[in-house]
Amino acid sequence: MNIPNYNDVLVAHERIKPYIHETPVLTCSYLNDLTGAELFFKCENFQKAGAFKVRGASNAVFGLDESKAARGVATHSSGNHALSLSYAAGRRGIPVTVVMPHTAPQAKKDAVIGYGGKIVECEPSTSSREATFEKVLEQTGAEFVHPYNDPRVIAGQATCARELVTQVEKLNAVIAPIGGGGMISGTCLTLKNIAENTEIFAAEPVNADDAARSLKAGYIIADDAPQTVADGLKVPLKELTWHFVSRYVTDILTATEEEIIAAMKLTWQRMKIVIEPSCAVPLATILKNKPVFKGKRVGVIITGGNVDLDTLPWL
Amino acid sequence: MNIPNYNDVLVAHERIKPYIHETPVLTCSYLNDLTGAELFFKCENFQKAGAFKVRGASNAVFGLDESKAARGVATHSSGNHALSLSYAAGRRGIPVTVVMPHTAPQAKKDAVIGYGGKIVECEPSTSSREATFEKVLEQTGAEFVHPYNDPRVIAGQATCARELVTQVEKLNAVIAPIGGGGMISGTCLTLKNIAENTEIFAAEPVNADDAARSLKAGYIIADDAPQTVADGLKVPLKELTWHFVSRYVTDILTATEEEIIAAMKLTWQRMKIVIEPSCAVPLATILKNKPVFKGKRVGVIITGGNVDLDTLPWL
Repeated sequence: MNIPNYNDVLVAHERIKPYIHETPVLTCSYLNDLTGAELFFKCENFQKAGAFKVRGASNAVFGLDESKAARGVATHSSGNHALSLSYAAGRRGIPVTVVMPHTAPQAKKDAVIGYGGKIVECEPSTSSREATFEKVLEQTGAEFVHPYNDPRVIAGQATCARELVTQVEKLNAVIAPIGGGGMISGTCLTLKNIAENTEIFAAEPVNADDAARSLKAGYIIADDAPQTVADGLKVPLKELTWHFVSRYVTDILTATEEEIIAAMKLTWQRMKIVIEPSCAVPLATILKNKPVFKGKRVGVIITGGNVDLDTLPWL
Repeated sequence: MNIPNYNDVLVAHERIKPYIHETPVLTCSYLNDLTGAELFFKCENFQKAGAFKVRGASNAVFGLDESKAARGVATHSSGNHALSLSYAAGRRGIPVTVVMPHTAPQAKKDAVIGYGGKIVECEPSTSSREATFEKVLEQTGAEFVHPYNDPRVIAGQATCARELVTQVEKLNAVIAPIGGGGMISGTCLTLKNIAENTEIFAAEPVNADDAARSLKAGYIIADDAPQTVADGLKVPLKELTWHFVSRYVTDILTATEEEIIAAMKLTWQRMKIVIEPSCAVPLATILKNKPVFKGKRVGVIITGGNVDLDTLPWL
């Protein structure tokens, strides 16, 4: 197992800077009053391709040598990694193939195609995705860039927390959603090196709480096809992300579908930003665990803003 | 007629700084490519109370002497001015009464009450509103703060363009929506004093194009009850705003309902920000008048983000 270290993060940050935004941090006095905490929202919904995943994808794509790059890249993804890898490959001018569940939001499919990516559809389960993907790799000879279980990807995602700690002083805690664990692993990698007293919380839907159950059990529990409105958080932990999650995460908090949707709508209403259901899970868990965060300075990672505006979950 | 001057703007800016945000300017490479212009979006949707109107309202409220302030302020508005005046009065701790049609959206009523405002309901007609408002003024002795035909309000709105020209160098043009003309008047007041070569465009719905027809005719034309999705832009010009619009506006461009809704949805999708239909009118007019803006650096004022998320116009 090739575990990325903090030097990999520094190399990644230099490599990807031309292709990403240093995203802004927003605050909202209404939400501070409501939660009793000081919340600092790191707005990766304003990131290139609409999500933090462009950090890891760009690090992988621009780190390839010429001969590997010429054969292109491929991945399977529930959404934003697909867009991000397509964006990065497009910027480098190399081919990219993405295996996606046919149930993925149309907006995400359109965006992949808009960046020049090729889509191969599968069923919405981990087993179907992995089987379909095997065939794609055989046919293309492309470099596999896993959405999260890849040291290049984790080192890339880690640049987000690196920006955050330079933008906001003295954070007591950082919270981010957890699906496969790429963002959380990158956050652990950065904070344990440059802000070791900052607590790290992960937030997960009750309906896809495999990471929370894993942390409690002490080993990876993987569900095959959980159902949740937070479509970015259905995938299970893998060995690399488990390495970070099991060692450095303080706690994994969960929220119901209703709580997630309410937190999403509240964020749109009060902060005037478009965020995905997945990014509303941290705020939902803060609202139901106020004593945990009361009086603390908390970084909240808004992971993406790629929403199908024609099918909003509260309508 | 008491026409505000640029010194009034400087005084206003110092006065209101503790109560407003210096809102960020966002850019979007996708929209730059699409329009052929360099667009700089001044995000007043992130402003306190969700709209630029808090600038003028705060200037009026915090400029009152103690004895006048003690009797409170009042206005008639079913929109952002009602929220903004309630916010400002709440910050100063003085009474505020808002006359609103009983048909106004519950969300707006709740927001006014949330800021500590008192609502007096009227029938949804001009005669009922005026009669009700007269009574309120008599009973309370409150200071009337008009939504736009008021020099204190125009001087307050002018602080938005003052921020914009310090945030973005060498703007060739600025464009903002026009309803009663408060924002455009403030923009004229600032730019003609500190950036006189910057062109000023106003953007208006075809369905409520009274300002465009006024500019062409050379006198104020007021429509009785125009119907448009851009609900902030239904009101007519008045003598103070006509003073600025007739002298300093390069052109008033118009967009249809379909064009406004498409530009609104595009902004949500690509910029990941929640904006009102009224703020989408400038982008809609830029998209249909590309040669006017091609190659120019254009400030686009996003006036507010108070949207009813349960009734989006494209659904």
